Amino acid sequence: MSVAVFYHAGCPVCLGAEQMVADAIDHAKYDVEIVHLGDQSERITEAKTAGVKSVPALVLNDQVFHINFGASIDDLA
Amino acid sequence: MSVAVFYHAGCPVCLGAEQMVADAIDHAKYDVEIVHLGDQSERITEAKTAGVKSVPALVLNDQVFHINFGASIDDLA
Repeated sequence: MSVAVFYHAGCPVCLGAEQMVADAIDHAKYDVEIVHLGDQSERITEAKTAGVKSVPALVLNDQVFHINFGASIDDLA
Repeated sequence: MSVAVFYHAGCPVCLGAEQMVADAIDHAKYDVEIVHLGDQSERITEAKTAGVKSVPALVLNDQVFHINFGASIDDLA
């Protein structure tokens, strides 16, 4: 099973992207985890280490996809 | 069946995102079409009308998701 982690911060841009992730990702192939970095600030370091520069971002296995541009991750720390 | 159209221009950023689309989108739910705007410049107007500002971009039904930032669509026209 592959791992998909969606990092967001609750912004309007994030919510649209979250819907996309929930609807469109193949759940038969991917374990999808949604991480709200505003609520779970202890996971910001993990997100940065994965290469996340802004949210919303989707990490598929170890590849980062930044979706549109919501907020710089540096503004969340 | 929902419609997913992935617009790209063959750039390295696009190729990574294309892999993501091919692998991760639920093909049971979405008919996925890949459009290379470099080769199919007649579809640039359609992409702009859908709200595409840069490629790679994924249009799910009528919602646009710009992924990372490859190239401005204005540079392709």
